Amino acid sequence: MVSINCDMGESFGIYQLGDDQGIMPHITHANVACGFHGSDPDHIQKTVALAKRYGVAVGAHFSLPDLQGFGRREMKMTYDELLNAIVYQVGALNAFVQKAGMELSHLKPHGALYGMAAKYDHVAMAVAHAAKEFNLPVFGMAGTLQETVYREQGVSFVAEFFADLAYDDNGDLIITREHHAMDVSAVIEKVKTAIVDGKVKTENGNFIDTRADTICVHSDTPNAVELVAAVNTVIEVTEAVVEV
Amino acid sequence: MVSINCDMGESFGIYQLGDDQGIMPHITHANVACGFHGSDPDHIQKTVALAKRYGVAVGAHFSLPDLQGFGRREMKMTYDELLNAIVYQVGALNAFVQKAGMELSHLKPHGALYGMAAKYDHVAMAVAHAAKEFNLPVFGMAGTLQETVYREQGVSFVAEFFADLAYDDNGDLIITREHHAMDVSAVIEKVKTAIVDGKVKTENGNFIDTRADTICVHSDTPNAVELVAAVNTVIEVTEAVVEV
Amino acid sequence: MVSINCDMGESFGIYQLGDDQGIMPHITHANVACGFHGSDPDHIQKTVALAKRYGVAVGAHFSLPDLQGFGRREMKMTYDELLNAIVYQVGALNAFVQKAGMELSHLKPHGALYGMAAKYDHVAMAVAHAAKEFNLPVFGMAGTLQETVYREQGVSFVAEFFADLAYDDNGDLIITREHHAMDVSAVIEKVKTAIVDGKVKTENGNFIDTRADTICVHSDTPNAVELVAAVNTVIEVTEAVVEV
Amino acid sequence: MVSINCDMGESFGIYQLGDDQGIMPHITHANVACGFHGSDPDHIQKTVALAKRYGVAVGAHFSLPDLQGFGRREMKMTYDELLNAIVYQVGALNAFVQKAGMELSHLKPHGALYGMAAKYDHVAMAVAHAAKEFNLPVFGMAGTLQETVYREQGVSFVAEFFADLAYDDNGDLIITREHHAMDVSAVIEKVKTAIVDGKVKTENGNFIDTRADTICVHSDTPNAVELVAAVNTVIEVTEAVVEV
Repeated sequence: MVSINCDMGESFGIYQLGDDQGIMPHITHANVACGFHGSDPDHIQKTVALAKRYGVAVGAHFSLPDLQGFGRREMKMTYDELLNAIVYQVGALNAFVQKAGMELSHLKPHGALYGMAAKYDHVAMAVAHAAKEFNLPVFGMAGTLQETVYREQGVSFVAEFFADLAYDDNGDLIITREHHAMDVSAVIEKVKTAIVDGKVKTENGNFIDTRADTICVHSDTPNAVELVAAVNTVIEVTEAVVEV
Repeated sequence: MVSINCDMGESFGIYQLGDDQGIMPHITHANVACGFHGSDPDHIQKTVALAKRYGVAVGAHFSLPDLQGFGRREMKMTYDELLNAIVYQVGALNAFVQKAGMELSHLKPHGALYGMAAKYDHVAMAVAHAAKEFNLPVFGMAGTLQETVYREQGVSFVAEFFADLAYDDNGDLIITREHHAMDVSAVIEKVKTAIVDGKVKTENGNFIDTRADTICVHSDTPNAVELVAAVNTVIEVTEAVVEV
Repeated sequence: MVSINCDMGESFGIYQLGDDQGIMPHITHANVACGFHGSDPDHIQKTVALAKRYGVAVGAHFSLPDLQGFGRREMKMTYDELLNAIVYQVGALNAFVQKAGMELSHLKPHGALYGMAAKYDHVAMAVAHAAKEFNLPVFGMAGTLQETVYREQGVSFVAEFFADLAYDDNGDLIITREHHAMDVSAVIEKVKTAIVDGKVKTENGNFIDTRADTICVHSDTPNAVELVAAVNTVIEVTEAVVEV
Repeated sequence: MVSINCDMGESFGIYQLGDDQGIMPHITHANVACGFHGSDPDHIQKTVALAKRYGVAVGAHFSLPDLQGFGRREMKMTYDELLNAIVYQVGALNAFVQKAGMELSHLKPHGALYGMAAKYDHVAMAVAHAAKEFNLPVFGMAGTLQETVYREQGVSFVAEFFADLAYDDNGDLIITREHHAMDVSAVIEKVKTAIVDGKVKTENGNFIDTRADTICVHSDTPNAVELVAAVNTVIEVTEAVVEV
């Protein structure tokens, strides 16, 4: 069963980001911000409570320590600094998850850290070792260092397909600081192709291999609610067909 | 058995504070900063490792979110904000403690939050409810709201005596932003009187009732190493006598 | 001539707050956030440029250092700490104002600091002395310590009337952490009464004296654009009538 | 006349760093931290006052926004983000300098930003354009992008020689996160060779060309006071000889 994950709980203080209330009913896994790129203890509490209400699994969406840059600017940090920053964030979120009577379900690096884990060995290792510590699977990008390093370190890897980001011909994501509204029918087509054919059309119009254990939609994509609802439907329909 | 607790792990980034290496061998309980008034993920990792090396119990020393003010400036926060801030910090520290194969031993509010928990009901309640969540005792000041509220809420209370802070005639602490070196023999006398007679001499020269389940020394008191070593000895000697 | 001021430039990083683009054409004075409760260097740059485009005067809207609490939680800070925090923020904003070829027009404390300056002498003094340093008038609340202390210290005082906040019978504002949409016709009536009669109807329905050298609208009030446009019109109409 | 500059005012809140009191009498130019890698409004105020007492010129020592990493971790920031971050910091410091009746004397990027300005064109451009804005010279490293870009942009460039950092064979600095005590006689020899011969011995024992308009000593080098006093003397002696 393909799952749908969404980056949630990224509001901070008075600042609202993303329609978590609208999105939560349509997803299976919430990647909850831990306070380093967005969120704060109050928003974490609210987000975990919202996830619980809709029976959504909660994962830790940890980041580089850069609130102003929303964790989307690379920072040169050592393996130790990264591992400690991850343990701190996962531990903080985990306390709210346990308080809510739930169990943490997965890990996912946010923003620049996600990209760095696909490129730099010491970053992927820090993520992997945090995952072993908490004994949790990591959502990541297939065919990158994320997959190879995590697997080598004995960490469970969940291949993620991005419904609302473009891919280049190397299979790399075009990560932008702000997300833009997406055409729903194009996204449906894209997700269906990924699930059924294991392919994605790149920004240059080529089809390359991809994998989709879980589909990601960003909550700060302007029409995110519409997208997750559509992706939810396409998964159900596609899988029904596949099963037949 | 009277224990000795010390506020530890308050360094931040490049900034060193307190001689944790020198103090750790002499104490039984380390109140470890959680990153809101001092410390960061790297210093938390190091402090927990140091505590483990010396068999010292680790408690969470959580604070108001005020790094520049070292958590020593009162902030008007609601019960919810305080509870969430505490859960976040305790959870973060707890992850490092569990990673080290230890168990968190106790809670203690830091600085202005400590004072606020002695005065404001909603603050004491936030501490109490966090303590129930983690099922841990709280170190606090006897005869204040800390004791009454914690006990009412079914939380285990450990009465703390401050070796290096002055008391006024109401039994309130004279909390200062920076701590000063203390005369060792005066501190020994003060601790002995607290343990044996349950009394403390106030800054006005009066003796008032006090209780000492645990003795606190601040790590940023300039001669803290000397003080904890002396307090350690006075506890052993005093208790040996008492037991006879 | 009564002016209209609005708290502007309170977005932070990826987080948007307030429709600055919509509001700017309707106001005469922008109170620009300086990075301690909202904003950051990039948003300051954009806000000053926007003010310049519409010929709006730029003032410094400085705050307690509390981004998570949006400067709306009181903090116990000393006179020195407050004065230094204000000088820092005004200086930072001023660099952008001068870079844009403009001159800083006024000062205004934000949120909890605004309330504290009306109640605590050392806070009002810190604001006053910063104002003397920069030789700028301060927008504030008539009949409070703000007015008396600023005037005593030789600082020019501009009495501010709040179009979108309720008053109690003492003339104190009911400051809330989040602002709510206001009925436009009620606001028009309220502003007209303040300008023409020097009166405001309190939340209990009583009329008390008030003064309105400048009318304030908050940019995070949901219908702020509508409000400032209406207030702008009512000022012009009212003053035309008054002049006749 | 060769000047001596030192990175000063890097304490933060309760945390002390560097013996500013001991160093200030021996230097001509203080590079004062602006709050992004160290310092805060209170320490800025104190540092500027100390510089004034000893007749030391004050420059802005601005940084990447990374307090925990002390500005020593590279961050991927755009030209606009960098320029705005610099303008903010210089403006903030400048307010204290003007309040003290002084004028800002120079600019100098701190830590990772210093290294980035030597390597990346958009970083050197951001520094250059900030310098033009404030019409101030920049201290930097000769023979790097710092020199070429600044000069191209019409900014006055002051070649800096590091008394307490090692050079590699390319003339690049070996920048470390923490500085170590230096042998005083070796430093004297190194500075003399730089001033008289325009050469520096690299870590591999080779002599390469260098320039020394100003000599830099870091205040967090453990024996910084001793070093600046020695460098001060060697400059006077060397220049006396040169003049004869």
